[in-house]
Amino acid sequence: MLLLRAMAGRRLPPLTQLHRGCSRLAAGSAAPGGHRGAAPVLAALLGLGAVLAYGERRRRSAQAAQATPAPQYPRYTRAEVARHRTPADRVWVTHGTEVFDVTDFVELHPGGPDKLLLAAGGPLEPFWALYAVHSQPHVLELLRDYKVGELSPEEAAPPPGDTQDPFAGDPPRHPALRVNSLKPFNAEPPPELLTQSFLTPNELFFTRNHLPVPAVEPGSYRLRVEGPGGRSLSLSLEELRGRFPKHEVTATLQCAGNRRSEMSRVRPVKGLAWDIGAISTARWGGARLRDVLLHAGFGDHPPAEGEWHVCFEGLDVDASGTPYGASIPFHRAISAEAEVLLAYEMNGQELPRDHGFPVRVVVPGVVGARSVKWLRSVAVSPAESPSHWQQNDYKGFCPSVDWDTVDFRAAPAIQELPVQSAITEPRPGAAVPEGELTVKGYAWSGGGREVVRVDVSLDGGRTWRAAELPGQRGRGWAWALWELRAPVAAGSRLDIVCKAVDRSYNVQPDTVAPIWNLRGVLSNAWHRVPVTVTR
Amino acid sequence: MLLLRAMAGRRLPPLTQLHRGCSRLAAGSAAPGGHRGAAPVLAALLGLGAVLAYGERRRRSAQAAQATPAPQYPRYTRAEVARHRTPADRVWVTHGTEVFDVTDFVELHPGGPDKLLLAAGGPLEPFWALYAVHSQPHVLELLRDYKVGELSPEEAAPPPGDTQDPFAGDPPRHPALRVNSLKPFNAEPPPELLTQSFLTPNELFFTRNHLPVPAVEPGSYRLRVEGPGGRSLSLSLEELRGRFPKHEVTATLQCAGNRRSEMSRVRPVKGLAWDIGAISTARWGGARLRDVLLHAGFGDHPPAEGEWHVCFEGLDVDASGTPYGASIPFHRAISAEAEVLLAYEMNGQELPRDHGFPVRVVVPGVVGARSVKWLRSVAVSPAESPSHWQQNDYKGFCPSVDWDTVDFRAAPAIQELPVQSAITEPRPGAAVPEGELTVKGYAWSGGGREVVRVDVSLDGGRTWRAAELPGQRGRGWAWALWELRAPVAAGSRLDIVCKAVDRSYNVQPDTVAPIWNLRGVLSNAWHRVPVTVTR
Repeated sequence: MLLLRAMAGRRLPPLTQLHRGCSRLAAGSAAPGGHRGAAPVLAALLGLGAVLAYGERRRRSAQAAQATPAPQYPRYTRAEVARHRTPADRVWVTHGTEVFDVTDFVELHPGGPDKLLLAAGGPLEPFWALYAVHSQPHVLELLRDYKVGELSPEEAAPPPGDTQDPFAGDPPRHPALRVNSLKPFNAEPPPELLTQSFLTPNELFFTRNHLPVPAVEPGSYRLRVEGPGGRSLSLSLEELRGRFPKHEVTATLQCAGNRRSEMSRVRPVKGLAWDIGAISTARWGGARLRDVLLHAGFGDHPPAEGEWHVCFEGLDVDASGTPYGASIPFHRAISAEAEVLLAYEMNGQELPRDHGFPVRVVVPGVVGARSVKWLRSVAVSPAESPSHWQQNDYKGFCPSVDWDTVDFRAAPAIQELPVQSAITEPRPGAAVPEGELTVKGYAWSGGGREVVRVDVSLDGGRTWRAAELPGQRGRGWAWALWELRAPVAAGSRLDIVCKAVDRSYNVQPDTVAPIWNLRGVLSNAWHRVPVTVTR
Repeated sequence: MLLLRAMAGRRLPPLTQLHRGCSRLAAGSAAPGGHRGAAPVLAALLGLGAVLAYGERRRRSAQAAQATPAPQYPRYTRAEVARHRTPADRVWVTHGTEVFDVTDFVELHPGGPDKLLLAAGGPLEPFWALYAVHSQPHVLELLRDYKVGELSPEEAAPPPGDTQDPFAGDPPRHPALRVNSLKPFNAEPPPELLTQSFLTPNELFFTRNHLPVPAVEPGSYRLRVEGPGGRSLSLSLEELRGRFPKHEVTATLQCAGNRRSEMSRVRPVKGLAWDIGAISTARWGGARLRDVLLHAGFGDHPPAEGEWHVCFEGLDVDASGTPYGASIPFHRAISAEAEVLLAYEMNGQELPRDHGFPVRVVVPGVVGARSVKWLRSVAVSPAESPSHWQQNDYKGFCPSVDWDTVDFRAAPAIQELPVQSAITEPRPGAAVPEGELTVKGYAWSGGGREVVRVDVSLDGGRTWRAAELPGQRGRGWAWALWELRAPVAAGSRLDIVCKAVDRSYNVQPDTVAPIWNLRGVLSNAWHRVPVTVTR
């Protein structure tokens, strides 16, 4: 609370500036584990916000005291609540079985109006669970003043499952996720939340499922590892945890289709319309794949001459029983430096069902598609995985190749991804206030080539400034969150652009069209965000 | 001569088409060692060219038979010969002490007029030494018909050396090299010769010297290797050859300043005006640095925690006695996969003096500046080399950084280079004949990330086609020579562009300005060659 006391002695800035300062400070302390490290600062500022909000509350309480008796609240269904998502329609939220109209509080929300609006039309709990600053008594007390109703009693029970639907067993998801496909489930966190913390909260980590989420009983789970000479191992979850040292890696995973929607604007492509959020970072814990392979009888070199591969299969299967599968080169799998994991922990918790419970592969620096979830088998092979997703998907082509001419054998399966960056704040089309603008975003590159510089332009790429990068990052497996502050004048239109440089001095291409490809993968051109500056 | 006989039965195509066909076939067989493999095909076509040239010879011989007696040849100095470099000034060359006016043969030259013009104004021998097809009796016989004079007798002796000049001891160089700086010597092969063969002939390999070339007596040469705990080794050339297994690597080296002249056109930069030829490929032979470090007492891991480096010093020194120096990370130096060499052979010959005789470092996949020539010491250190060229040069910066604001500590020393490609044929501004155009070039990327695709556009980047890449290449350390054939119509203007994609799917940026930097390094934007098509 030091900061709060220090600020209390000064003339208070207008609330809008406070909000901007708040998000800036929170980002400034982003670092490995930073979403926890940022909390005290955020809490201090939220505390200040709460003081101001209390003023509003006292005013309303005084009005309420004049009115008698306590009102009989009307009943609403969840569907009725869900219709109230904007200030124009009034902003409603639920907490427990209570319904609140928080429209008048939106502008007072210490975390910023945008963040509160993410919860509009639905329950507050999933958001409060992510941002611990809400677990203070005065927050609930504040909320009660905005109560307008109760949920109908029949809304308490979840809707009955559809046993015919192969996706009926999928787990519940966080309402903040932007859903690109419900079945299979594919969703990304909103950009405003993506770079809120260095480690992405598990609930917000982008989800890229190819098939229904398998229901795995951890007690009977077995991982099959095919050893040399036809022998094979079967490891229980307990054995995987107990027999091999636990290794932890902070690594970013990115879908090959991240930013596909920008590519679709050039010419339609086949694939999910990911925005910039098909990328997230976690601290993964598990056994090294290297250790498991050595235990199974393999050595530092492949079993014979030539290129060898390590193939993975998941427990997720299609209607014909065919599992998801992928492979990585043997030399990466066996390399100590490559740190490939058979992970059973994600940010200190057991893997969520959407992220591969109980065991998934994590291949740092490599396209997410090779980090097979719900892992059921590991096999060493002289050929790549025969899986559709290894052979006939996740490959890049010349812009002139179309579905009539494509030959999937002509291109290598994507492994390491190219250098990438994107702007998460402000959002395209936003009106930003004059004064100091803070631009925020992420940058990352494949193969452990950490980002060494991010250049930002406010004039479409004519002039550039280097953004601030946090000094301490992971070993190159994890993204860098960057920001740039610049004075901006009212009335101007800005074309904000970012581009990153990695350790090998690779850079992003200027434009999307020349890297267009029929599957819409590898979309890593400069990211552009046009905004206007208002008074 | 099979090809010649097969062609003899057909109506002969016009000569200009033959020349184009010839260079295409020669390139088509380019492969590891391909400058030798291509020779039979070239010889066959040269044979055909020779048949046609013989017709011209017989005509001239008949005229000569009518004239009597044999002429008394005038005497010329080399300076006088050197003034005859274009058809307008007449094209003169020398062979031994004889002077020839080959102007009328230029268009008949089976290897193409451009190739003959490279020798204009000087001796033929250095070119004939590179292209063995010229060592046939009829070639000399043909040449004699064009004799116009003799060199003055005093031209036989080389000019006396200047003992005051630190560069006086530099070795002689091949006249085809395009000199960017004479002292120190910096030169590149002309683009037409650059991709003539997969392995660059030693005489044409680009030369980047920072200081005078040291004169090393191989018998007394010693390499000092500082071991752990203050011990150190001293290895003679014989010991380096005898104690460690010889390892061979085909690797491309590229100067960080390659293609700097394109960057200078955006805004002036500090540095030599390299065109596209500061890149070459050789098969290097020598001891693995790893083996030497293990022999000196180091292990697979650095001597202590943290980042360690292996520092190299050369025998080339400045006026104050300070040597050239550079370093690479310890993990690369000790890695078996990284194949770092202490090389004493280049394309099967001992190192030429300009390329580090008797021993140089070769760091595959890394900027040439770290492959220290005339190696005198190897030391393991917790810090990078203190050398100027490691600390205050060979680093990349944001385009807005100038000499007033640059902080060399803010950027990492360049190690792996980004993906690169360039067009070697046709040349910018050329007039190419209608019909089938062959575009040729090279592509390469750092870190062993081999090139997986090269896209070529004839319309400035609006539409693209994938070029043909040879199927067999080195392990990713060597460039790929590519070509694309396309029909082109007379009267059109082409804006030919190339861009490469490497194994990590990194691509080149579209334009130069956004990657401009004050030292003009890392110039890897799309390469553009405008040409016109003539009838």
